[in-house]
Amino acid sequence: MEKIKIGLLGIGTVGGGVWEILQTNKEEIIKNCGCEIEVEKILVRDANKKRDTSIPQGKFTSDFDEILQNKEIQILVEVMGGIEPAREYILKAIKAGKHIVTANKALLAQHGVEISQAALDRGVKLYYEASVAGGIPIIHPLKESLGGNKIQKIMGILNGTTNYILTKMTNEKVDFATVLKEAQDKGYAEADPTADIEGFDAAHKLTILSTLAFGTPVKFEDVYREGITKITPMDIEYARELGYAIKLLAIGKEEEDGLELRVHPTFIAKDHPLASVNDSFNAVFVKGNAVGDLMFYGRGAGDLPTGSAVVGDIMSIVKAMGNKEILKDGFTQDLSKKVKSVSDIEGEYYLRLVVEDNPGVLGKIANLFGVNNVSLSSVIQKGESVSPVSLVFITHVAKEGDIQATLQEIKSMKEVVEISNLIRVENGRERGEA
Amino acid sequence: MEKIKIGLLGIGTVGGGVWEILQTNKEEIIKNCGCEIEVEKILVRDANKKRDTSIPQGKFTSDFDEILQNKEIQILVEVMGGIEPAREYILKAIKAGKHIVTANKALLAQHGVEISQAALDRGVKLYYEASVAGGIPIIHPLKESLGGNKIQKIMGILNGTTNYILTKMTNEKVDFATVLKEAQDKGYAEADPTADIEGFDAAHKLTILSTLAFGTPVKFEDVYREGITKITPMDIEYARELGYAIKLLAIGKEEEDGLELRVHPTFIAKDHPLASVNDSFNAVFVKGNAVGDLMFYGRGAGDLPTGSAVVGDIMSIVKAMGNKEILKDGFTQDLSKKVKSVSDIEGEYYLRLVVEDNPGVLGKIANLFGVNNVSLSSVIQKGESVSPVSLVFITHVAKEGDIQATLQEIKSMKEVVEISNLIRVENGRERGEA
Repeated sequence: MEKIKIGLLGIGTVGGGVWEILQTNKEEIIKNCGCEIEVEKILVRDANKKRDTSIPQGKFTSDFDEILQNKEIQILVEVMGGIEPAREYILKAIKAGKHIVTANKALLAQHGVEISQAALDRGVKLYYEASVAGGIPIIHPLKESLGGNKIQKIMGILNGTTNYILTKMTNEKVDFATVLKEAQDKGYAEADPTADIEGFDAAHKLTILSTLAFGTPVKFEDVYREGITKITPMDIEYARELGYAIKLLAIGKEEEDGLELRVHPTFIAKDHPLASVNDSFNAVFVKGNAVGDLMFYGRGAGDLPTGSAVVGDIMSIVKAMGNKEILKDGFTQDLSKKVKSVSDIEGEYYLRLVVEDNPGVLGKIANLFGVNNVSLSSVIQKGESVSPVSLVFITHVAKEGDIQATLQEIKSMKEVVEISNLIRVENGRERGEA
Repeated sequence: MEKIKIGLLGIGTVGGGVWEILQTNKEEIIKNCGCEIEVEKILVRDANKKRDTSIPQGKFTSDFDEILQNKEIQILVEVMGGIEPAREYILKAIKAGKHIVTANKALLAQHGVEISQAALDRGVKLYYEASVAGGIPIIHPLKESLGGNKIQKIMGILNGTTNYILTKMTNEKVDFATVLKEAQDKGYAEADPTADIEGFDAAHKLTILSTLAFGTPVKFEDVYREGITKITPMDIEYARELGYAIKLLAIGKEEEDGLELRVHPTFIAKDHPLASVNDSFNAVFVKGNAVGDLMFYGRGAGDLPTGSAVVGDIMSIVKAMGNKEILKDGFTQDLSKKVKSVSDIEGEYYLRLVVEDNPGVLGKIANLFGVNNVSLSSVIQKGESVSPVSLVFITHVAKEGDIQATLQEIKSMKEVVEISNLIRVENGRERGEA
């Protein structure tokens, strides 16, 4: 099996996520790109420091040249952040013919032209899916699937911290300073929160998105920027009354007389898909002249979501590098995974019946559920005056087979007029698992 | 300028969309893939039929061999639908070394393994972004950006017709048969609606998504399938009462004991992102072990949205074909587009003031708006008893420069205690424009 070796600059939140994904999902990665990806060296400030990690000590180095001059390292992954020395290292690696993956939005927003031109001139790949909206695929779709569109508008919730603060202010009717303090105490907001709350972070990301969407180098300084510090619970309440939510939006539009580029708190209509993007989630709304309205929603930060985007970029480069573009996908995999029979599926169920309103009917039915190992979470029997009446049940998690067995027995009861409907329930609990 | 020639099989809804996009967005396409894409031949049943179209008559042919044997045609675009002869034509074109783009979900769900294997063996590309969820980029993200994830779950609203019907039933409390009839009269549903309302269409799409997500060839016959014909307004009302919406979901999960593959009406918690996907919109919710929860939302059908996905696929092939992978993107484009100054931006505005509650103050302020060409859409003055009081305005569309001028004049009024906040409004009207 071929091994592709990468050099990692930095092992903070994102770098740690990249390392973890490369270990945990090794099997998927090999299946999807045809070879193993190995971290050869990791650049850190102090290579001798004791670290609480499973990473072998020998991987660390404090000397960038050790990575630069290692011909076996074909891809440089920059997740150290900041402008310098990240910029210098990337430019040197490009010159040395290494492909680049970076998650560095500030760097790209301010030096994207220089770095992209260097990569273009040297003929190496430069991928940066992780630089905008963390794990959400948005850079690649803009450059690939949506390439045949004239993009007319982009509107993004691109900063998780401010979206978390605005969501809290909305739900709990508390003021900005209180929520910010709480977010800082919990580690959701930085000790110096300026980059987030004043919109710099969102403006960096908008610079990158607009450059790609409108096909012209956008200058970070040209983005109008206003933060969320002046938003009050009173404004949020008026917004609600008038049918809006308040979100910090990063907006890019191309109109006949020029581009509009701005980051500011915005009243957005309640029925717009962006209005219900809450907590620390990010979303990017895109309007193309062919595709119409699109929205991409997901986690905009965090070790594994951002690491997911970085690893995806590495894999794309690996596939393109080795002329391995044509690889087995699901259709051409030999392995055949077992499909569960419906009776083995576990879930919750909604059941609606019509029954004669005799004493004891509800008890009899509830008992049949119990006998078949199905427990109930909700029962609705409306106080209707005339028999027959509707009975509605929602079960806890149960096997479909047990549900079907219960149904058969209920059906045979003389008091049961009709089994009106059985509908499966997805309770949304999976959102909490993420 | 190099020209890439394609052969088009079929010129129905999707084919027409592809043709239109290739003409309208020629400039974007050249910019994004470095060459022009030209439709060389279009396969139709009757090449001599008079057509109400701008397509030159000479493009049409009824003879597939004319496309197959034309060495200049490097990409075959199949948008004719159905199993045969689409399958036969695609297999022949693969043998002849042509790359394939197809939008044919039924074909891929039933013969995806055969076709993918043929393409893999011959070393040609096979792209089918348009086969699932129309214009929404989902196939490429699954294969590229998310390649480093173990995908745990996919839940999709993959059929626009049934989502439209369920939305109407929910909002207007009418029964299934009535809404279906109306949808058929308006052309939103087919005369024979079986493929949509019985879930076959969604099951085809789930077969393709699950095959890619779980990396194993999924059989269409293994997908459990139940349509929406038994859903009643009463079920929808109970769902609402219990905190759910009813959606036709296509669900694929990988669990330790096997895959779950099913299409059926589902109770989905009101606060789940899928619950607010309404009308004919599609959405795909994906959960990966690294990226967490993602959702992709947009138009799942229609000539231009589906055509957008087809054209994106053609462009991806063109880029990979000619080793033109490294192309100019926004960062490296020479052209520099003008950025509008904020004062030239047009929009609606929310303004909150605190004023002394003297007679005539509201009139004076309203007058200042008028003098500066700003008209008002809402005014809120609560009947508070003590001065000073809050005044809230929402404007119609106005220039930011005029708003700022108005603000200056308002600020200088002696009755104005404070200008509390000015927040921009995105009214969501753009959704109607799509």
